[in-house]
Amino acid sequence: MTAAPTAVRTQVAIVGAGPAGLLLSHLLDEAGIDSVVVDQRTRDEIETTIRAGILEQGTVEVLDRLGEHSRARTVGNRHDGIELRFEGAGHRIDFPSLTGRSVWLYPQHEVLKDLIAARLAAGQDLRFGVSVDGVDGVDSDHPVVHARTADGEALEITADFVVGADGSRSVVRAAVTGSSTGGYFREYPFAWFGILTEAPPSAEELIYSNSPDGFALISQRSATVQRMYFQCDPDADPNALSEEAVWENLQRRVPGTTLKEGPIFQRDVLRFRSFVAYELRRGRAAIVGDAAHTVPPTGAKGMNLAVADVVLLNQALQALILRDDAHLIDAFAETASRRIWKAQHFSWWMTSMLHTTDEATPFDRRRQVGELRSVVESEAGMTYLAEAYTGWPLASMD
Amino acid sequence: MTAAPTAVRTQVAIVGAGPAGLLLSHLLDEAGIDSVVVDQRTRDEIETTIRAGILEQGTVEVLDRLGEHSRARTVGNRHDGIELRFEGAGHRIDFPSLTGRSVWLYPQHEVLKDLIAARLAAGQDLRFGVSVDGVDGVDSDHPVVHARTADGEALEITADFVVGADGSRSVVRAAVTGSSTGGYFREYPFAWFGILTEAPPSAEELIYSNSPDGFALISQRSATVQRMYFQCDPDADPNALSEEAVWENLQRRVPGTTLKEGPIFQRDVLRFRSFVAYELRRGRAAIVGDAAHTVPPTGAKGMNLAVADVVLLNQALQALILRDDAHLIDAFAETASRRIWKAQHFSWWMTSMLHTTDEATPFDRRRQVGELRSVVESEAGMTYLAEAYTGWPLASMD
Repeated sequence: MTAAPTAVRTQVAIVGAGPAGLLLSHLLDEAGIDSVVVDQRTRDEIETTIRAGILEQGTVEVLDRLGEHSRARTVGNRHDGIELRFEGAGHRIDFPSLTGRSVWLYPQHEVLKDLIAARLAAGQDLRFGVSVDGVDGVDSDHPVVHARTADGEALEITADFVVGADGSRSVVRAAVTGSSTGGYFREYPFAWFGILTEAPPSAEELIYSNSPDGFALISQRSATVQRMYFQCDPDADPNALSEEAVWENLQRRVPGTTLKEGPIFQRDVLRFRSFVAYELRRGRAAIVGDAAHTVPPTGAKGMNLAVADVVLLNQALQALILRDDAHLIDAFAETASRRIWKAQHFSWWMTSMLHTTDEATPFDRRRQVGELRSVVESEAGMTYLAEAYTGWPLASMD
Repeated sequence: MTAAPTAVRTQVAIVGAGPAGLLLSHLLDEAGIDSVVVDQRTRDEIETTIRAGILEQGTVEVLDRLGEHSRARTVGNRHDGIELRFEGAGHRIDFPSLTGRSVWLYPQHEVLKDLIAARLAAGQDLRFGVSVDGVDGVDSDHPVVHARTADGEALEITADFVVGADGSRSVVRAAVTGSSTGGYFREYPFAWFGILTEAPPSAEELIYSNSPDGFALISQRSATVQRMYFQCDPDADPNALSEEAVWENLQRRVPGTTLKEGPIFQRDVLRFRSFVAYELRRGRAAIVGDAAHTVPPTGAKGMNLAVADVVLLNQALQALILRDDAHLIDAFAETASRRIWKAQHFSWWMTSMLHTTDEATPFDRRRQVGELRSVVESEAGMTYLAEAYTGWPLASMD
């Protein structure tokens, strides 16, 4: 005989303790709305999965609401520009002079540590190791999340609204779209070979380098640890290359800059895909962040787009739950889509402008350099890029 | 027995009496440099082949040097913007407020009438019906153009420099590139179905319309004659459609605007290609305009790019011939290439942003709308487009 499931009642059930889910619980709490956040991973797994992080200025401003818990401005580093490099020459895109804005280099797992600390300090009902099997009743006023704890105990969370912030393998998505994989989709014929190395920075700011041999991104992590990437085959084995070969691949793609080498202590291959779910909301359920969309990493839009979704959904949920006003939630999918498709375009644009492909003809290659030159020779072109990189305005928080 | 060829000596032999060749002869004459211009077509053929014409502001300023012969400002119409239309809504790009510049709608055959009148008034040696067989001695100080008159008489033009302004089927190109077709090349999976119709204007300015059914361009010619285009298959037969079907195709691609219909008195199918010759200059020969490059028509760059080539080449020839200074002619190919590849990119960009293809996935289609929205929602994005459309600065004329 099976024990009756533990029943939990809350206003908003949030599946996924990533940046989107945790931030949403914080913003809802500010407005006096209760939520329960569950994630199948352990806290340790969440806090130690190393991921990149370029935060738009608007994202940092939203994180400021965590108060002292946000270390984006203190531990993170403000970057006032990036370099576009092609034909062996660097061209700096100066964000403040073009847009009045900046970005912050602050890895996603650090953002997660801040968010978890802030939520726990506020008494958030936050449960790790909880797997969600499915969501029922999204077309009713009280959808239910069916889940199991790490001990196998059944858990039912009844809510006024369910939010899927549960990543690219979202379980909640199926309740929203009717199909767990249904969406607009694009694959790319390349991936990034990423390394972490113990070395001093090779540059002050990120270098996005287009070369005849492919793309490279020279990023930073700290004074002693650097993150670098180079374009590779999606099926590349990260362990097949010697350290010497890794450095040779990187250096060849950044002509004009001598990279500072050091021991490589992590390697990975990041595959590229673009995805947007066919539906972002159905009845009293919505999906946000990676559950709703994936972008290739070239535009650094992933986490920022999740934050933008959440800022918008927070407004809509406040209206729905506090004022019984469905106007914003009914507009949520359309409003969120506008930013999502601009971000998808920007990510595709940065990707296609900077990478090389086997199919590219000599004409395509010359056109690509013509495009890069068109951008850097025009203040308007640089501004157009910088606006997208530093982030379009977010919905008002008030 | 063959008669000895008629021998002609000049400083610059110009093959082709299109906009590039005629304008170059004018600018050289201003500097006191003699030229002979030959074209295999008759004057009547040149003046009556109807071609479109959006003139960049810089092009109009160069044509101002023809004095009263240029009617671009009096007969042509200044356009202060274009409309980008997608998802059924129009978005105006206002050129003067974004760039301080405008364009002029003035067909190419009218420019040619002006140029021919101006050159003949100035006593230019301008010979129609002359076919060029080849060019010798481009690596010597005195290259020779071998040609035949309409009567079959052999003609040899010995010059200090030979310019190929003889269009996309250039004969001079072989002497410069070593191969008459050698170049960077791209084909497109669509063409434009163009019509001339006796009707009043449907809009004040050009409408570039992206629709799920494909692209359309609503252009103007005069108060009573209009030029319109819609995207079609490259193999389409211009005479296969009824007038009703033509209007239905156009109207469907411009949702939100009711087109003013009239009798259609000309139809044509314009195929799209991008081309840049591998070499633009060798020794004492160079190619300009369509002989050097072809662009798809979406960016309206064809004739303007020819004028930019000529402004640059004029400077280089003055330095070479008047001051025995080869510095500018040695830099010509590289300098001209920079503008050419920016224009190739712009033409490709406008084409790819506005047209649909059978291969486009639903993701690609949404991204395209995301791109169009990114441009029109950003003053920087609109400025970047407007700068290219109204024309980047030309080389100094002094």
